[in-house]
Amino acid sequence: MSSTVMSEKSKSENLVEGTTTISLIKGDGIGPEISNSVIRILEAAGAGLQFAEIEAGEKVYLSGKTSGIPDNAWETLRKYPILLKGPITTPRGSGYKSLNVTIRKTLGLYANLRPARTYDPFVKTKHPGTDMVIVRENEEDTYAGIEHRQTREVTQCLKIITQPGTEKIVRYAFEFAKSNGRKKITCMVKDNIMKITDGLFNEVFKEIAKEYPEIETESMIIDIGAALLANKPQRFDVVLAPNLYGDILSDIAAEVTGSVGMCGSSNIGDSIAMFEAVHGSAPDIAGKDIANPTALIKAAVMMLVHIGKAEIANKVRNAVLRALEDGYRTADIYTGEPNTHKVGTIAFTDAIIERLGKNPEVLEVRNFSKPGKVVLKPVTNLDTKELVGVDIFLDQYENRDPEMIGKRLEKLADRILKLKMITNRGVKVYPEGQPETFLTDHWRCRFVAIQGSSITHNQILALLNKLITDGLDVIKTENLYEFNGKPGYSLGQGE
Amino acid sequence: MSSTVMSEKSKSENLVEGTTTISLIKGDGIGPEISNSVIRILEAAGAGLQFAEIEAGEKVYLSGKTSGIPDNAWETLRKYPILLKGPITTPRGSGYKSLNVTIRKTLGLYANLRPARTYDPFVKTKHPGTDMVIVRENEEDTYAGIEHRQTREVTQCLKIITQPGTEKIVRYAFEFAKSNGRKKITCMVKDNIMKITDGLFNEVFKEIAKEYPEIETESMIIDIGAALLANKPQRFDVVLAPNLYGDILSDIAAEVTGSVGMCGSSNIGDSIAMFEAVHGSAPDIAGKDIANPTALIKAAVMMLVHIGKAEIANKVRNAVLRALEDGYRTADIYTGEPNTHKVGTIAFTDAIIERLGKNPEVLEVRNFSKPGKVVLKPVTNLDTKELVGVDIFLDQYENRDPEMIGKRLEKLADRILKLKMITNRGVKVYPEGQPETFLTDHWRCRFVAIQGSSITHNQILALLNKLITDGLDVIKTENLYEFNGKPGYSLGQGE
Repeated sequence: MSSTVMSEKSKSENLVEGTTTISLIKGDGIGPEISNSVIRILEAAGAGLQFAEIEAGEKVYLSGKTSGIPDNAWETLRKYPILLKGPITTPRGSGYKSLNVTIRKTLGLYANLRPARTYDPFVKTKHPGTDMVIVRENEEDTYAGIEHRQTREVTQCLKIITQPGTEKIVRYAFEFAKSNGRKKITCMVKDNIMKITDGLFNEVFKEIAKEYPEIETESMIIDIGAALLANKPQRFDVVLAPNLYGDILSDIAAEVTGSVGMCGSSNIGDSIAMFEAVHGSAPDIAGKDIANPTALIKAAVMMLVHIGKAEIANKVRNAVLRALEDGYRTADIYTGEPNTHKVGTIAFTDAIIERLGKNPEVLEVRNFSKPGKVVLKPVTNLDTKELVGVDIFLDQYENRDPEMIGKRLEKLADRILKLKMITNRGVKVYPEGQPETFLTDHWRCRFVAIQGSSITHNQILALLNKLITDGLDVIKTENLYEFNGKPGYSLGQGE
Repeated sequence: MSSTVMSEKSKSENLVEGTTTISLIKGDGIGPEISNSVIRILEAAGAGLQFAEIEAGEKVYLSGKTSGIPDNAWETLRKYPILLKGPITTPRGSGYKSLNVTIRKTLGLYANLRPARTYDPFVKTKHPGTDMVIVRENEEDTYAGIEHRQTREVTQCLKIITQPGTEKIVRYAFEFAKSNGRKKITCMVKDNIMKITDGLFNEVFKEIAKEYPEIETESMIIDIGAALLANKPQRFDVVLAPNLYGDILSDIAAEVTGSVGMCGSSNIGDSIAMFEAVHGSAPDIAGKDIANPTALIKAAVMMLVHIGKAEIANKVRNAVLRALEDGYRTADIYTGEPNTHKVGTIAFTDAIIERLGKNPEVLEVRNFSKPGKVVLKPVTNLDTKELVGVDIFLDQYENRDPEMIGKRLEKLADRILKLKMITNRGVKVYPEGQPETFLTDHWRCRFVAIQGSSITHNQILALLNKLITDGLDVIKTENLYEFNGKPGYSLGQGE
């Protein structure tokens, strides 16, 4: 076994011998220590793995590469598409991009899995009996990174939710639940406010749920759901959420179960997958043989399941549980209780290795297995789509008078498109606005086809041309469509 | 005192006599009971209030008014701009709009305050010693309600963060902290991902913080912040957040402190303010003399402070605390501990009234006072704004080949605007995309001015015209601007 990049020759040999080669980023801070702990355990367990190490993280950032990962790493990752990754230190200062976001986005890792379980009574927790998995969509939502400032006062970020992106994560969640004996999936969205985007996410969830009648399902509003998860995490089994909510829920779950140092995480794509600890690189305790390697071991267990070595995964997991039962504690989880002893990273690793083949006697065991493959339903979407209007956004900094702007636009409108309303931050200000409405320099002007007929792109261009010729500062447009005769846009507050 | 709408005569008389008239929505379910409890306490405390009752909620919804509030209510609210509001039942089924959202948006109630404190050792809690206030921006963010579906697969919601909207809520938070002896404000955003929108929010926070050197400040990433708030709420004093995060944080705080039935809330605008309980209408226990009126009493206490009756507010608050100390418990907080007795809504109210003038002996008292007026800095924003390009979004459902689309667009581009890149869900797919990137039918095509010069609206129209004439389905545009020479737009992942 080698933790350095192998020569082409050795790679081929290993492939012939049936061992699997794993891409490895040891990481910064405590990363190398806990990576070495994991490598020792995997070797002792007979996992039959080899490692192709990739240099990434702090050193690469500081060498001037803002992504934190060298260009040639992508080749390695595509050759050995399973990545085990230690924690990374992103240097302070602007311009450095998150290595995690880069890897997720570049390689299309659409699913983020974050198990959170407690080890009571052996590791102290406020919430005994918690055993849940958060399945987070990993590519869409406000994290797609599409932001614009188009007036002096107003900035905007696009929240993107797509049908196929949602279908992928929803199917993954159901396949995961089915393969791993999970009974229930809770979907968390805010579809009472975001009826189109979060509404789509929840609709796809409910639709696909019908294919898995054996899994119980429920939908919850995110604020209520987050509060319940914070206070009664025991009630949850699998929790499914879009990117931003999932990000928040994952951290809450790890924190309230007291298991930040004990949580692994996986990021799954169609062909590539990444496994990592959820904690940071903790540079203050690096190199001191203090760090708890459990989180990265858990990540490695998830990885073993993913590559079809569930038996080895269960063996490693059982040994970790048994070591906890036998009183071994790293400093972060040592509380001085009877029959426990504080040990360093290496001794903790030794204790686990000694217990390979033994089972826990108290802690509940859940055997892991790999989810079925996610296959999107082959659809030819036959929805009709009809252009029925356009929202034209104006920047008007001086003279913030909705009546004046409204009258001016009405004069400019033609026999094809008429002004329906103007909103400011989503609140209708014309016609018949309210005097209390606070006005920014950002005006959304909705034009719709007269008599509800459909219009053409050229008719929108003609209108834009009139507005621009009149000296108006058009900053953006959003076309209005009907799909199968139903509006694909929200009404203004007060419309 | 009257809880029905008064005649014009009595209104005038009362104004002459120096009493204040409050608009009142008693609400549905337990609303009338707890409203009556509050009215009795306020009268006994000598608050000098009269009430103009507004019929709103379930009955109004079911009469066919989708807003849940009759049109003439707005007149009452403008005449008596302080509203005390019980919980509302929104009927099941689509089409009914949230009354809260309608009132907040129509009247410009930009600040939502949610105090969360514990009453240990008298009311059981997992987190003794918590005493925080969440200040939530109430009008912007993804809650502005601007959503569009423009392709078969992709939906979008605009997240809007504005400079003046942020300045208002930030100044309110600092004025509140200053007037109420609060020491620290924690601002929670996700500005490592949403650098322009959440970045603006945090920048405004840091800028205004300089005017309040006596208040300690910190900024926190929302996922970490929400997790800490869920697990160690004691560490927080004032928490400030944009709308969505604030919504989630408010529910977490109420839930983990075990005080959902004990939390009041205020919604503050420039001239109008609304005070309410945070809990729902609980129709299952309505009319049974079981409900805990504390949350609405707390809301009334906040209201008294707001209208300049801090002394009465403190008197009521102290009586509530003393009643808790003396063992009075409604069913929701009764745990059978020694020296406590379970009482109904009316008896609990009686116990509070009997204690008006008495102080608590154990529970900590915090005297409330009204924050100073929020005055936006008069600015003439002199930032230069220069049009440097445009993001044109296309719907292309068939033939999802980035190379083909890229080459076609390059041919259509002219000597003014050149194609910089194409992204799909924010990930660059042209030029030099990655083979793993999942492709939807939604393509963002960035065109920028050649040689970094600025362009005109007409040049964008000319380009749009070429694309449309070539048969491309343009669904939206976002202009690209530089402000003071710096890009007002995010780069694509991989750009």
